[in-house]
Amino acid sequence: MTDYQAPVRQMRFTIEHLADFKAVAALPDFSSVDGDTTQAVLEEAAKFAGSVLAPINWLGDRQGVKVVNDAVQVPQEFATAYKQFCEAGWPGIASNPEFGGQGFPKTVALACDEMWAAANVAFALCPELTQGAILSMDRHATDELKQTYLEKLVSGQWSGTMCLTEPAAGSDLSSLTTKAEPNGDHYLISGTKIYITWGDHPMAGNLVHLVLARLPDAPPGTKGISLFVVPKYKLNADGTPGEFNDVIPVSVEHKMGIHASPTCVLAFGGKGGSVGYMVGKPNEGLAAMFTMMNYMRLGVGAQGVGLAERSYQKSVAYARERVQGRAPGEKGRVTIIRHPDVRRMLLLMRSLTQASRAICYYTASCLDRSAHGTDAEQVAVWQARADLMTPIAKAWCTEAAQEATSLGIQVHGGMGYVEETGVAQFYRDARIASIYEGTNGIQAIDLVGRKVLRDGGATVSAFVTDMRSVDAPLANAGDEFAVVRKALARGLDELVQCSTYLLTAERKDPELAGAAAFDYMMLLGTVIGGWQLARGALAALDELNAGAEDKPFLQAQVVMAKFYAEHVLPRCTAYAAAVQAGSASKMALAAEHF
Amino acid sequence: MTDYQAPVRQMRFTIEHLADFKAVAALPDFSSVDGDTTQAVLEEAAKFAGSVLAPINWLGDRQGVKVVNDAVQVPQEFATAYKQFCEAGWPGIASNPEFGGQGFPKTVALACDEMWAAANVAFALCPELTQGAILSMDRHATDELKQTYLEKLVSGQWSGTMCLTEPAAGSDLSSLTTKAEPNGDHYLISGTKIYITWGDHPMAGNLVHLVLARLPDAPPGTKGISLFVVPKYKLNADGTPGEFNDVIPVSVEHKMGIHASPTCVLAFGGKGGSVGYMVGKPNEGLAAMFTMMNYMRLGVGAQGVGLAERSYQKSVAYARERVQGRAPGEKGRVTIIRHPDVRRMLLLMRSLTQASRAICYYTASCLDRSAHGTDAEQVAVWQARADLMTPIAKAWCTEAAQEATSLGIQVHGGMGYVEETGVAQFYRDARIASIYEGTNGIQAIDLVGRKVLRDGGATVSAFVTDMRSVDAPLANAGDEFAVVRKALARGLDELVQCSTYLLTAERKDPELAGAAAFDYMMLLGTVIGGWQLARGALAALDELNAGAEDKPFLQAQVVMAKFYAEHVLPRCTAYAAAVQAGSASKMALAAEHF
Repeated sequence: MTDYQAPVRQMRFTIEHLADFKAVAALPDFSSVDGDTTQAVLEEAAKFAGSVLAPINWLGDRQGVKVVNDAVQVPQEFATAYKQFCEAGWPGIASNPEFGGQGFPKTVALACDEMWAAANVAFALCPELTQGAILSMDRHATDELKQTYLEKLVSGQWSGTMCLTEPAAGSDLSSLTTKAEPNGDHYLISGTKIYITWGDHPMAGNLVHLVLARLPDAPPGTKGISLFVVPKYKLNADGTPGEFNDVIPVSVEHKMGIHASPTCVLAFGGKGGSVGYMVGKPNEGLAAMFTMMNYMRLGVGAQGVGLAERSYQKSVAYARERVQGRAPGEKGRVTIIRHPDVRRMLLLMRSLTQASRAICYYTASCLDRSAHGTDAEQVAVWQARADLMTPIAKAWCTEAAQEATSLGIQVHGGMGYVEETGVAQFYRDARIASIYEGTNGIQAIDLVGRKVLRDGGATVSAFVTDMRSVDAPLANAGDEFAVVRKALARGLDELVQCSTYLLTAERKDPELAGAAAFDYMMLLGTVIGGWQLARGALAALDELNAGAEDKPFLQAQVVMAKFYAEHVLPRCTAYAAAVQAGSASKMALAAEHF
Repeated sequence: MTDYQAPVRQMRFTIEHLADFKAVAALPDFSSVDGDTTQAVLEEAAKFAGSVLAPINWLGDRQGVKVVNDAVQVPQEFATAYKQFCEAGWPGIASNPEFGGQGFPKTVALACDEMWAAANVAFALCPELTQGAILSMDRHATDELKQTYLEKLVSGQWSGTMCLTEPAAGSDLSSLTTKAEPNGDHYLISGTKIYITWGDHPMAGNLVHLVLARLPDAPPGTKGISLFVVPKYKLNADGTPGEFNDVIPVSVEHKMGIHASPTCVLAFGGKGGSVGYMVGKPNEGLAAMFTMMNYMRLGVGAQGVGLAERSYQKSVAYARERVQGRAPGEKGRVTIIRHPDVRRMLLLMRSLTQASRAICYYTASCLDRSAHGTDAEQVAVWQARADLMTPIAKAWCTEAAQEATSLGIQVHGGMGYVEETGVAQFYRDARIASIYEGTNGIQAIDLVGRKVLRDGGATVSAFVTDMRSVDAPLANAGDEFAVVRKALARGLDELVQCSTYLLTAERKDPELAGAAAFDYMMLLGTVIGGWQLARGALAALDELNAGAEDKPFLQAQVVMAKFYAEHVLPRCTAYAAAVQAGSASKMALAAEHF
């Protein structure tokens, strides 16, 4: 029995129509991927998520994790599920075939990531981090390191972590102090890292920590940071795990959510240094880590989508069954799904979730087209768009997830606040997604500073042009689409205004980028979401006109686009006003007068 | 040591300038209340909240409550604090002097309620419920019942509860089934009630349950519900608690927050009926209960204000101390309060909190002027405005509290998600406020149906006229206020448009009121908040021009009004679009296609 059924139809529709699946499948690296293989993967993943991961989600929340004798303990059910997860080959679904991966495009694999997160986000973080570690090593490590580690990571036998944060170095990594001393063919790492997700656990045979640290002669700031791979157990000559490498989980955090995901304080090398090996070049560790980080950011966006979807499904089920109140034109009491305000909440959840999904899958598609493209010019175009999309996928989609999971509680009324109901867990679990892998404020600043201002608005302008091309088909689609067309056009106009404002006013006001970033990010994400839902409605209309069979599903795509145009796109006006307010009122008060 | 300092200066300013204190103090019932007595009450309450209630808030969250041998156990520290609370006379601060109360206006007492909630909302619910019970009995019970119960309730020796909800009767009370059988001079009550806040506990000598139940011959639906007072212990001839009255706390809920507030399932009369006495007339119990309910709704709004304020204070303290990143024009690393995006979050928290406070206190002022007025026409005016304001105070302010307490977590970054930091508790505790005492959706439907449509928009129109009168002084106040003036005028125009739309379109569309209610409530609340902050800015300007000494505080009032005009008032456009979207897209899908 499961209470999560992955929305395979909706995912497939999104991959095909909103994440340009044809263009991805046409890339040589993906020659063996087609609609049928994709469908098969999604269906198998849906089964696994629903039958293995979802049923232990609540148990994980209640039991949590703890440190006993310098080791993290997790629920036994998680270890069993992890074993099954690996046996089924899920860890390597999108990994490099050279190391045993199945080489599926991210566009497809991200739908699986969404399912794992929906079913059990605390569990999902473990393979998610491992994927990030694989990607970073695959791109930056020596062949020897790759040969030693990657196959084990791809199979899930070993798991990976990302060790960035220190007590005084969080959003700003420049002041990190963990040390790496050269020692023959390796380095000795010592220092304390905090907030290390799945930093210790007994589910894998070894843990592979990717650790940011400083060489003795490193320059200060971010230009003196190198990346090291530090295994939990040193490897024997035959590559099997041997002696303990002095990486001690000092404690785990007591968090508001994701209780079954151990968030560790890790002490490296307290007894003389943990053995580590450099990944990439000296002092260029941040770039190598950002490969992993950007990957993780999209994954966090997908976590938001998954949790929003899960909360939506539970809320719909409740609303269909809970009888309360009466309705115009009907006799007797009705189920609450009959009430317009409950429908407002459910449609808001559904349209925000689908907009988020379309944003995330599209980002994955941009990544696939840049990482696997063959035409240099096209690769550059899609890389730039992926860079633009990544902070939006992370930040906008997790803001949407907060809103959706909160609405899920609200649909349940008093029941929603009672933990046993389960929707409270989705809300608590979702709250971290706006924080980790770079807070949403940091994402927004990255978006405005590096992705919009740096190229003079070129990337965002090109995207606006693409988005405007949906206007003509919307006009042709008839009066029914007038509200979508109007709201989207207005949002796009506001976006262009705000981009121009930022590019112009920023020269005079050094605080502007930071002051306007969050609202600009929300504006851009809201417009892209509206564009995607409009494309979805048009694609659905085409299928309906072609006589497709699943009418209710396709009609729902049209309803979502309209609802979003009426209820979400108008928020653009508020975001635009906030962007154009500049920095004056924000900087007006002295710190002591807050 | 305390980490909550009640914002007495801000509260006093709000009472004086935004809740029309002069008009309240001019009422004969409040002849002994003036600025000095108000200041003294606020300062004493601030001390109590900061030194007694705030320090045990976290402990309450961790320890929670449980049922042992048919009785609820609470942390011993709570019982000690409750004793001190009663000894200091706080339960009766606003109660009828005839029964030992101090007779302060609600306009002042609500500031105390805000403090109790900010310091320890789980604790605060106990006296809050008691106040509601007092009010309902004072207005509807026989003199004999009042003589028997009120003094004990006003002193806090006994505490009160509100027993409405049953498993199948939540938002819709029409189907409640608890029975009341006549039996000589009393009734025998039997049935099960759920979600009973502080439904059992050992802090008071007796509990006084106000219970909705049906007489044997009662008509079905809401017109067959009567109200009864049912003590936990029957009274001896001398009025002291005697024999157990068969009210058993079967269990307490495991909730996401307010862990130290026991939310009970209560079984009444399992052994033949609990003795109860009717309050008010047969079959008119709902009206008597609504006296209590409306009182509680304003109290819930004040809980939102308190939790938002508490989270704000903690966030400011953290932002002033946490060093991270660099800033334009400054050497070295800076505290995060220097960053514009952190300031955006703090100012959003502060302006939403102050707008909420001003809305709640103003509602209290309307209530005081209706309940204690001497001119019948004026009483009617203020009653109508209080009726309009109550659902806004409850719903808008608790939505704002969700937003503010979420921002409080965000300011803290990863620390915010760790429970020991404390801001997560405020977020979890705040989430229930949008649900209990009638969900925010129910509040919005009450607002649109009973307070706007029923009188053809007369009450809201009169209020709009009042709010427009701030335009001229804003114009006179100079260019600095242009943004406030413009945003407020636009919001008011959108409000008028939407009111007209509702009044017109509702005749043709029976689903419209429900479909548009939530966004209309948000629109109206946002405009009223903007009006209040504008008034605050003008009052501050007057004081500044008169040479007042606390310039930073007064200048902050102006900054808040501007920030809110730039960042919050523009949301009105989105709410207005959603209202005017009507019900079509919401009602488009069949229930099975969600």
